[in-house]
Amino acid sequence: MDIIRVAATSRSTAVAGAIAGVMREQGHVDVQAIGAGAVNQATKAVIIARGYLELDGIGIVCVPSFVEVMIDDQERTAVRLSVEKRPVDSGGASPPDASAAEKETSHGL
Amino acid sequence: MDIIRVAATSRSTAVAGAIAGVMREQGHVDVQAIGAGAVNQATKAVIIARGYLELDGIGIVCVPSFVEVMIDDQERTAVRLSVEKRPVDSGGASPPDASAAEKETSHGL
Repeated sequence: MDIIRVAATSRSTAVAGAIAGVMREQGHVDVQAIGAGAVNQATKAVIIARGYLELDGIGIVCVPSFVEVMIDDQERTAVRLSVEKRPVDSGGASPPDASAAEKETSHGL
Repeated sequence: MDIIRVAATSRSTAVAGAIAGVMREQGHVDVQAIGAGAVNQATKAVIIARGYLELDGIGIVCVPSFVEVMIDDQERTAVRLSVEKRPVDSGGASPPDASAAEKETSHGL
């Protein structure tokens, strides 16, 4: 299992390229991040990778989970985005450029 | 289409409850966040909601995308997590408590 570790300072396009590369070869990759900045970069990287892979006819979904990892002998909680293939024509998801103008019910939290 | 808007100050458990509620009723919900802190809270909320919904036999995946939204007459780029159902027994994803101890190839970015 490949794990791509993302930091708050990681370039999201570089991470996206890595995600796309592993997805093309193995069809699955885990992206791991600790802290808000890193989780944000990881999420943006998955979005960008989704665009790259769509050009190859590969659709992706991600399943987020918490994982406990040891860093410098300290236990930290990381967010893991498990990226998996799915058929691009399965529908249901908004395309990356979806307009926010659709009719909606809003819940501010 | 229901949209749940998340801020950096949103409590992830409250957002998770809202996600789980809409998923049970409608089977699909979009979670929208602007900024690293908000994206982090939204992602954590999806993870927590996944735990809630698993107890009901509902598996979820998320498809992240960028959306342009107007806030105070300014265009901002938001991250949207489109949350969808999938069979809980479809396999492939790590469970929420997956150990990070599995054999892995690491890519630090």
